[in-house]
Amino acid sequence: MASTIQGQVARYLRDAYAMEHQSLTTLEAAEKITGDVDLEQTIRGHVTETKQHITHVGTRLEQLGETPSKLKNLAGKVGAVALGAGIVVQRDRPGKLLAVAYAYEHFEIAAYELLRRVAEKAGDTATVEVADRILAQERSAAEKLSWSFDAAVEASLEKTGATS
Amino acid sequence: MASTIQGQVARYLRDAYAMEHQSLTTLEAAEKITGDVDLEQTIRGHVTETKQHITHVGTRLEQLGETPSKLKNLAGKVGAVALGAGIVVQRDRPGKLLAVAYAYEHFEIAAYELLRRVAEKAGDTATVEVADRILAQERSAAEKLSWSFDAAVEASLEKTGATS
Repeated sequence: MASTIQGQVARYLRDAYAMEHQSLTTLEAAEKITGDVDLEQTIRGHVTETKQHITHVGTRLEQLGETPSKLKNLAGKVGAVALGAGIVVQRDRPGKLLAVAYAYEHFEIAAYELLRRVAEKAGDTATVEVADRILAQERSAAEKLSWSFDAAVEASLEKTGATS
Repeated sequence: MASTIQGQVARYLRDAYAMEHQSLTTLEAAEKITGDVDLEQTIRGHVTETKQHITHVGTRLEQLGETPSKLKNLAGKVGAVALGAGIVVQRDRPGKLLAVAYAYEHFEIAAYELLRRVAEKAGDTATVEVADRILAQERSAAEKLSWSFDAAVEASLEKTGATS
């Protein structure tokens, strides 16, 4: 049954690949409307990391036999978590943006926690390593976002004109 | 300008009220498909807490002059984060469910972190207290969910027949 569980690893990797593309789209939209220099820098840094995650996960999928055309299809797939859809239309943008980004980082953390466990059960060390490397960056991004709660409140109040 | 910032507090509270209703709907749907006893218990416990959060936030809104009919409208409002929409149709349900719930808890954590800061700036101690009390329970729920990654993987593999 080893092939079946390895099939599950590939499935988790495909989900992660689609998830990272969705993350990239959201982060790139978010970068422009943070209203705060530090938050903008956190998001910009994580855009770069997210592009690397796409490469890492895509490479591992190719190593497992996924074709480039299938990868291309995955890139356009919308995941179960339709985050970011409401960001741009929100009135209180910096705050909402931060809450959505913070939630999405934790969706990714959970996804990689699951992937690494399935890969471990399948004895797929290469995938465990990819998951661990990305997990560290997702955790760090989530922590950095949590440092911006104060700034996001300031920026949100400023946008609504309620600064005092 | 004190009334303006207090207006913002009310707005954050209204968002929280809608968010908690969305959370309740998702959690009640999730409770039935966890595939694991501990995860089911965590979710059931948080359903109870979420109902209390609705009461606490609703009470504070009423104290600030919100009418019952307006509260009723808010309860049906869908937030920016359309979580849970994909849960039931997912093939790998326990894993996806956990990832979505984990993300949603962190959306709530961020929302209350923002609310407590706006309330603090407004000098609205009663709202700060409500936010802090709920925050503690959201953090605890998020932590409990993180204990279920192993079990969710087992349950997911079992559902797909790839247990070895």
